Amino acid sequence: MGSPTGINAARLLSRLSALGAIGGLPGGGVCRLALTEEDKSARAHVIDLMRQLGLKVTVDQIGNVVGIRAGESNESPVLIGSHIDTVKTGGLYDGNLGVLAGLEVVECLNEHAMATRRPLGVCFFTNEEGARFAPDMMGSMVHQGHLDLDEMLSQCDSDGRSVSDALSAIGYAGDEPVNSLRASAFLELHIEQGPVLEEAGITIGAVESVQGISWTEVTIQGVSNHAGTTPMRLRHDAGYVASAIAVFVRDLALKMGGDQVGTVGLLEVEPNLVNVIARTGRLTVDLRNTDNAKLVQAEQALADYLQCIAVQEGVQIETKSLARFEPVEFAAELVDAVAATATRLGHSVRKMPSGAGHDAQAFAPNCPTAMIFVPSVRGISHNIEEFTAPKHIEAGANVLLELAMERANL
Amino acid sequence: MGSPTGINAARLLSRLSALGAIGGLPGGGVCRLALTEEDKSARAHVIDLMRQLGLKVTVDQIGNVVGIRAGESNESPVLIGSHIDTVKTGGLYDGNLGVLAGLEVVECLNEHAMATRRPLGVCFFTNEEGARFAPDMMGSMVHQGHLDLDEMLSQCDSDGRSVSDALSAIGYAGDEPVNSLRASAFLELHIEQGPVLEEAGITIGAVESVQGISWTEVTIQGVSNHAGTTPMRLRHDAGYVASAIAVFVRDLALKMGGDQVGTVGLLEVEPNLVNVIARTGRLTVDLRNTDNAKLVQAEQALADYLQCIAVQEGVQIETKSLARFEPVEFAAELVDAVAATATRLGHSVRKMPSGAGHDAQAFAPNCPTAMIFVPSVRGISHNIEEFTAPKHIEAGANVLLELAMERANL
Repeated sequence: MGSPTGINAARLLSRLSALGAIGGLPGGGVCRLALTEEDKSARAHVIDLMRQLGLKVTVDQIGNVVGIRAGESNESPVLIGSHIDTVKTGGLYDGNLGVLAGLEVVECLNEHAMATRRPLGVCFFTNEEGARFAPDMMGSMVHQGHLDLDEMLSQCDSDGRSVSDALSAIGYAGDEPVNSLRASAFLELHIEQGPVLEEAGITIGAVESVQGISWTEVTIQGVSNHAGTTPMRLRHDAGYVASAIAVFVRDLALKMGGDQVGTVGLLEVEPNLVNVIARTGRLTVDLRNTDNAKLVQAEQALADYLQCIAVQEGVQIETKSLARFEPVEFAAELVDAVAATATRLGHSVRKMPSGAGHDAQAFAPNCPTAMIFVPSVRGISHNIEEFTAPKHIEAGANVLLELAMERANL
Repeated sequence: MGSPTGINAARLLSRLSALGAIGGLPGGGVCRLALTEEDKSARAHVIDLMRQLGLKVTVDQIGNVVGIRAGESNESPVLIGSHIDTVKTGGLYDGNLGVLAGLEVVECLNEHAMATRRPLGVCFFTNEEGARFAPDMMGSMVHQGHLDLDEMLSQCDSDGRSVSDALSAIGYAGDEPVNSLRASAFLELHIEQGPVLEEAGITIGAVESVQGISWTEVTIQGVSNHAGTTPMRLRHDAGYVASAIAVFVRDLALKMGGDQVGTVGLLEVEPNLVNVIARTGRLTVDLRNTDNAKLVQAEQALADYLQCIAVQEGVQIETKSLARFEPVEFAAELVDAVAATATRLGHSVRKMPSGAGHDAQAFAPNCPTAMIFVPSVRGISHNIEEFTAPKHIEAGANVLLELAMERANL
């Protein structure tokens, strides 16, 4: 019986490669949509690892998998978790790192025969990406009681296949009740999926919060006419209006500053011909801020602008909310602990918000929760080029190890 | 033997309906792409009318059809012409009006046994719309020697079918040499295809010029990234750049004023997802002005802006010229004659440019040429809702009749 001095980076990297080979794409990267045959194989692979490490594995009613390493007491466990589903052209790190690093923590403890006061669990949650079934973070949100089980089981993919059917088909319609397990703390190691850490040359991000998200679909009905014969003053150009909104969104985010971001990622016009003024435009507006009051302010500014430009251009504008999540704050003491641990281990660290959603959000209202970010090269994620340097993976996993031991012995 | 007091409007309207039924669409409108089976039927229908009216019909090497009514002399004829091909969802008036009104002029002269000094011809030209083969105005441009016959015969449609093959298939690979017939004047009655006459409450447009056209395709290469995790200052957003260019084009046209128009009718971004910053953007810029110097100025302003925004946003921008036509001026004396004739017949008239291209352009460098515009309801054209009021058709055809008689007796 000794004390672990650090995780085995080579082993963790090799496990990332092995897991990434399941559903691997020819040019690199992974396609492992939730509850597909590829997901089934990956689940079997990870559960096999869990059992080799002596974890007691349960599968709940929505297919979330939890492997528990017993503690000296029966008090509520510390959970480490993330997801192993991917988007269609995903990388090897998104989600997978958090799960495999959790298993690496367990293996380190096992190797040194280290007991912890509380049980330590490693888990992966169903359909985090939302790339097959809506919404994303489905499994963790059901797990922690924020989404209704039956409603989620009846959600269908684009082929009309329900979550319930897909779970049965791959043998993961478990019987462990959801919304029953409460953790004493939840920890998630994840790649940043953004360029901030790399640009600043910082190794560890101590995630303070997850940005609130507001998605709005905007449709514009103008009048299609000939691009040559219609004077500028007689136009009701849906393409111009769509473009002007996209420019407004960008200017709004720059003007508000701070964490505010604004993106028009989808923009379409009809009939989309060189010499025809567009009859219709459709675009989406993605607004995010860590401060809900500021997010509301951004939404209001957009609504005011839409009203104004509709009158000015003589077009009809309709909006539809596609998603709205309030910002999530992580427990300050645990965020501080991430930062202190990183510093103690000699790593540069920055407190930062997460611009993307994560399973940890589901735990934040129910227990102290924290996320550890490591740099993504060029900020690229949801892409086969997703990459995080081995030294950063090792650094993040070691912060996770220290923090898990600390919290499991509280 | 008498003197025509005006065209027979009922007969002309009934012929517009009959011709519109060939390739007629279920909900109204016409689909009669150049050199298709529908075009073949329409050609046979119009040639049949020509022969009934005693015209001597020839078909040239690119399928243009000319029907000549002999004059007292063998001097160069006055030609009246337009086209009978349509876009995929076209109306009954675009092109067809100019051809059928020409035949109505002939029938009026026949009914009153009126001879003219010069021959009078009515013609229709192959592939004016450019909706099947590029470029548009193909037949008239070859007819007047501005485009090379062999090059045009080898142009292919999107299925790889050449003009030459398509002409043979419908039996219109004629033997009359192109670039041989020179008119003493060319007259084209056409719907405005824009909203100016209707808005001003004016019946006749005396077309002074055709706007010069500059089409540019702009492609933008940015960097795709996560809409939540990428701070505004680290973005290279091809979607924003595409939108900003569209807004610039509109502002440029407004600032330049006069006849200047600017349109971004086509705008696409990739991957076109709500939460992904666009990697690429593609748009077309359509700039038009009756003054070539001003058109060059607009093109230069666009080029300067593209260079500036590429640097500012850190994106690559490439441009490709899709089309460039200089403005065309019609003969002032003939434009004045259109205006004077309209006034004499009691119609309101305005001198105006054409924002669209027309077969008349091909004749303008070779002989005095004029166009007569009549109002388009709501400016709508290239659309099954295209409509021009019967009283305006009658007015336009009567101006054509007067002008044709005058020019044929010069």
